[in-house]
Amino acid sequence: MSIRRHDGRAPDHLRQVEITPGFIDSAEGSALIAMGRTRVICTASVEEGVPRFLADQGRGWVTAEYGMLPRSTDTRMDREAARGKVGGRTMEIQRLIGRSIRAVVDMQALGERTVKLDCDVIQADGGTRTAAITGAYVALALACRGLLEAGTIEREPLTTGVAAVSVGVVDGTPILDLCYEEDSRAEVDMNVVMTSEREFIELQGTAEGVTFSKNVLDSMADLAWTGISQLMEAQNAVLRG
Amino acid sequence: MSIRRHDGRAPDHLRQVEITPGFIDSAEGSALIAMGRTRVICTASVEEGVPRFLADQGRGWVTAEYGMLPRSTDTRMDREAARGKVGGRTMEIQRLIGRSIRAVVDMQALGERTVKLDCDVIQADGGTRTAAITGAYVALALACRGLLEAGTIEREPLTTGVAAVSVGVVDGTPILDLCYEEDSRAEVDMNVVMTSEREFIELQGTAEGVTFSKNVLDSMADLAWTGISQLMEAQNAVLRG
Amino acid sequence: MSIRRHDGRAPDHLRQVEITPGFIDSAEGSALIAMGRTRVICTASVEEGVPRFLADQGRGWVTAEYGMLPRSTDTRMDREAARGKVGGRTMEIQRLIGRSIRAVVDMQALGERTVKLDCDVIQADGGTRTAAITGAYVALALACRGLLEAGTIEREPLTTGVAAVSVGVVDGTPILDLCYEEDSRAEVDMNVVMTSEREFIELQGTAEGVTFSKNVLDSMADLAWTGISQLMEAQNAVLRG
Amino acid sequence: MSIRRHDGRAPDHLRQVEITPGFIDSAEGSALIAMGRTRVICTASVEEGVPRFLADQGRGWVTAEYGMLPRSTDTRMDREAARGKVGGRTMEIQRLIGRSIRAVVDMQALGERTVKLDCDVIQADGGTRTAAITGAYVALALACRGLLEAGTIEREPLTTGVAAVSVGVVDGTPILDLCYEEDSRAEVDMNVVMTSEREFIELQGTAEGVTFSKNVLDSMADLAWTGISQLMEAQNAVLRG
Amino acid sequence: MSIRRHDGRAPDHLRQVEITPGFIDSAEGSALIAMGRTRVICTASVEEGVPRFLADQGRGWVTAEYGMLPRSTDTRMDREAARGKVGGRTMEIQRLIGRSIRAVVDMQALGERTVKLDCDVIQADGGTRTAAITGAYVALALACRGLLEAGTIEREPLTTGVAAVSVGVVDGTPILDLCYEEDSRAEVDMNVVMTSEREFIELQGTAEGVTFSKNVLDSMADLAWTGISQLMEAQNAVLRG
Amino acid sequence: MSIRRHDGRAPDHLRQVEITPGFIDSAEGSALIAMGRTRVICTASVEEGVPRFLADQGRGWVTAEYGMLPRSTDTRMDREAARGKVGGRTMEIQRLIGRSIRAVVDMQALGERTVKLDCDVIQADGGTRTAAITGAYVALALACRGLLEAGTIEREPLTTGVAAVSVGVVDGTPILDLCYEEDSRAEVDMNVVMTSEREFIELQGTAEGVTFSKNVLDSMADLAWTGISQLMEAQNAVLRG
Repeated sequence: MSIRRHDGRAPDHLRQVEITPGFIDSAEGSALIAMGRTRVICTASVEEGVPRFLADQGRGWVTAEYGMLPRSTDTRMDREAARGKVGGRTMEIQRLIGRSIRAVVDMQALGERTVKLDCDVIQADGGTRTAAITGAYVALALACRGLLEAGTIEREPLTTGVAAVSVGVVDGTPILDLCYEEDSRAEVDMNVVMTSEREFIELQGTAEGVTFSKNVLDSMADLAWTGISQLMEAQNAVLRG
Repeated sequence: MSIRRHDGRAPDHLRQVEITPGFIDSAEGSALIAMGRTRVICTASVEEGVPRFLADQGRGWVTAEYGMLPRSTDTRMDREAARGKVGGRTMEIQRLIGRSIRAVVDMQALGERTVKLDCDVIQADGGTRTAAITGAYVALALACRGLLEAGTIEREPLTTGVAAVSVGVVDGTPILDLCYEEDSRAEVDMNVVMTSEREFIELQGTAEGVTFSKNVLDSMADLAWTGISQLMEAQNAVLRG
Repeated sequence: MSIRRHDGRAPDHLRQVEITPGFIDSAEGSALIAMGRTRVICTASVEEGVPRFLADQGRGWVTAEYGMLPRSTDTRMDREAARGKVGGRTMEIQRLIGRSIRAVVDMQALGERTVKLDCDVIQADGGTRTAAITGAYVALALACRGLLEAGTIEREPLTTGVAAVSVGVVDGTPILDLCYEEDSRAEVDMNVVMTSEREFIELQGTAEGVTFSKNVLDSMADLAWTGISQLMEAQNAVLRG
Repeated sequence: MSIRRHDGRAPDHLRQVEITPGFIDSAEGSALIAMGRTRVICTASVEEGVPRFLADQGRGWVTAEYGMLPRSTDTRMDREAARGKVGGRTMEIQRLIGRSIRAVVDMQALGERTVKLDCDVIQADGGTRTAAITGAYVALALACRGLLEAGTIEREPLTTGVAAVSVGVVDGTPILDLCYEEDSRAEVDMNVVMTSEREFIELQGTAEGVTFSKNVLDSMADLAWTGISQLMEAQNAVLRG
Repeated sequence: MSIRRHDGRAPDHLRQVEITPGFIDSAEGSALIAMGRTRVICTASVEEGVPRFLADQGRGWVTAEYGMLPRSTDTRMDREAARGKVGGRTMEIQRLIGRSIRAVVDMQALGERTVKLDCDVIQADGGTRTAAITGAYVALALACRGLLEAGTIEREPLTTGVAAVSVGVVDGTPILDLCYEEDSRAEVDMNVVMTSEREFIELQGTAEGVTFSKNVLDSMADLAWTGISQLMEAQNAVLRG
Repeated sequence: MSIRRHDGRAPDHLRQVEITPGFIDSAEGSALIAMGRTRVICTASVEEGVPRFLADQGRGWVTAEYGMLPRSTDTRMDREAARGKVGGRTMEIQRLIGRSIRAVVDMQALGERTVKLDCDVIQADGGTRTAAITGAYVALALACRGLLEAGTIEREPLTTGVAAVSVGVVDGTPILDLCYEEDSRAEVDMNVVMTSEREFIELQGTAEGVTFSKNVLDSMADLAWTGISQLMEAQNAVLRG
């Protein structure tokens, strides 16, 4: 692998990862996650009660919302509030975050309460959705710890760890953790969400102009685990801290 | 494989596929596709000109929209028009259809014109998004044929075939082409879009409660090709016809 | 009457009428109605309960919605869902359909349940609102039959038949059942909804550039009955079938 | 005819009509029309230019909007602006007003300018849409007079007079100019728009529970002319004044 | 003070004030207020019950809405209903009216009921928000009188009078009650709401291009009281009448 | 002054102020401002061109938008994007920020370009709108410095400094820089925006239950200057740095 990346990284290297727990002290759990220049504020808000479709089942719910500050990007974007609707990309991402995190939550342990995960991108340089998942997990873990310590719940609702990363093919080479510049010219783009037991929760691969073979899929899946296992170390360092 | 499916199918069998070309004669290209009880009207509308971001590059554009009639489902749904916005699921699906079809279109050959693919589900029994992709390809192929015959364009814009199918894991067994009942209790759900050269365009796998291993991913990928190659035969039969 | 119509019809002739009952099998009642090239899918959805303004009166309710697929017309229209609101014409039509059908329903016999009639135009060539009324009646009649057979209701809620047709004045001649080309250059356009007892439910006549006298109104009313009585025969053939 | 009406009127009597021209002096033309307790402010706004579909044809355009103040009715209604959309009834009415007035405008004489007619109900007691048409005609006539006097246009764009009234059947008796109390229990409700030459522009009859025969239609049409001819006298008195 | 005002007034003179009580007889209280060419219809609607955040506290609530007819201004404005949302200026004004009036209401005396104040500008020539406050007070006072007379409430909910006026600096001179022409070229614009005890409820001063000193603020505050005390005389004359 | 404040401050003391310039490196100018627990991200985005109403006058424009992250507050708020509209409070605040900053910008010096100021609250503890103004000034000053250094503009567009603070009356005592707890029980609440020459740009005082006299207004105005002059020192320290 001899590709020359934008920022000097090897194809299988993550960008610099930094997770700041408790970044927003008004929330039950929160973290600021930075992956290179990409920075996302993640908060977990715990509310008593569940949506109507879950009423009276003794089970909880986790949902996610995603947003970008208008000037998180190099060119300013209009606010979704000003446009009066949430765009397709935003909805797709917040559904992905919600599904990914719900896969590792024991809803019985959570009890009849709802956790809302808010992931707000304050600076965007590629990989915001996967950073959001990785950071939201930390915010949720901190909120669960608070619930446990307060005796509100009795056992840990998180059944396993979860983290996410993007992989892709650029100039024919599979690479890990694409920044915006790489993402915008990638031939294939894949987001992977995995548990700490190396199982898949979600895997979304998209050809952008050049289709891809099963072999390339296999390479990307391997690369994803390389990144995800390192992200889990960063999560654990913060949560142990 | 000894799973007993809802409708007696073997795990690797498609539902009955029927494609009716020219179902809507006001459109440049159209098809009604039925996969079992799932039925989708697909039309291709050709308009001169391209969106602003593509202006003056001599290239075309293909975009897709997706809708469901309110009573396509067993329980009536509200219209998105009445709710005043297009929902997240709809946006996700129409973005998927657009990306999938664009992957096989030579935009230079299409020239500065836009094809809008409308996929409207009149009856829904699982797999509507993949049926929409398979049917939209036929509608587009018929519209391209019209453009070629009229001399509006000079060469075929479709570079290869494309079809899509859903696969999943139900009761621990990978199965092909899930109907609604299967989909609603699947442990894993994956939509696969492939070319006639057995390359991937899009692959979206989601764990619903039970995560999945690389082995399961591989089985599902194989199963998908089994279905997609048969769907391509159905498409070709119609297009040759 | 020696006017030469677009498709060779005499001024007092309907287009070819075809009603396919049970077209959407997920609905309690449904029909596809074709009047010439105009085709409308009509479904009747039965839901327990009534809107709040009718609560606890032992009476039912019938309401209607209308939509057009984007490519039902020769030039593709934007989706109302995408535009984020239901247009004025659509609202006018769905109010008309609802009023027309409610006029023949014994709400006591229906009991505290709501029937939602969805009329979705898949191909439009003039007269879509009147075709929708004629087809919605069939869908509702089939749904009522199901309710009666299941013992959910005890007596027929439909008190009389109802059908609708458009009439108009083109080149000074009153004609029946205008196709789009005739409608777009008509001097007067009138939609008539009548019962099987030759009573009016609704009559909406509009001058388009040329005003009209009482004599013309009388001629158009006669012509409407000619068409409506034939439409009722088609409805009855299907319902007897 | 021995029906006893709510306010002592004979079946063929209008309510007290009062038209105050120039009620809003910021508009090119305006009138306050009162029919009994129903009061509507009508303004005509003249703008240079026409909608795109009419560009460069040397012809003008007339369009109408309708609104009700929230407390024009006995029970306060929510504002349409607050609900974020214009309701179906409002759209139906403003389309009716626009069509009715356009029927008597010589668009060539108006030239490439647009007149917007705003009809805002400040107090509602039945018949607001017909009062709006009758009042909008006066506002438009005053605006046209101003254009003629200023030499902006060369000849009168109004080809004939227009006024409107509601008729209906209450307790089996056809009556003229229904107030709200009568309207809410009418068996048939019909709005009629006519020219000063006793031709119809629009006629919309609706059965509300009881269907109606051709004879009843004929009686209502006669009654409508009785009212409309008197309304035209009131209009002319103001315009001569 | 030798400034020459648009309409010949001295700097400390109000425009002609006229308040017509009971202008809309369908409302519990109403007034038409005219300040020069500015005219606003104010109604007070009394509804049983309070918003949820006040439930079961034995206290009432007062809220306000504000609108402008499209042709209240010299150039026609689009309707907010047509634009599908209430604009920022409108919201700012209706919040101001609500706050201002609530400051003088004894919510215990009002009991668990809500008064909605609607202020609709039918002609605008500057100072519409302050005229709305002054008129809404009269509408509310009349509605309260009705509640007292009917025995619905036992004591007067209005604790003191309230009126409002605009002041500003034009060509370096502080002036009272700006008309539109003055407002549009004012260096400073200030809206003042005061009680009959010469206390402030609200004071909003804005520099428009030229900032202002404490001395100018003091002059404007004095001028405001000059106007407000006269407006209170006009209110009292009507309420005594 | 012997009031005991929530956090031990004297009545005339600001909370701890911290301004971090360049917090978002994708923007032309940015700052994170913290006043106690209140934290706001401010960015200045420079775009060529001006809104249509300013076209071809050689002058620039400055506008502002304001938002709050859903969990900036102790209780999570819904996103305005999800609700589909920008609320009244938000609009009021963004209009205030825009007016305040425009008052100190020489639009000729800025030339035909637009600066959009985005103020996004990531943690809210009272005084977010005034913190936003104070921080937005720094973001804008940094953006202007960049334009000057790049030679895009020739002279400084900022004519004077601007900062803002809230003052209020709590338990009868005028206090400076209210935190949320104080704000929620204040009798009077006033936001003051001033220039570095001690002139007012905006002053908005509101009685919340208890009205206020001219003397109290004077005290609050003095207190505001005490705070604003210190905020300007903090701004200057950062801008000199």
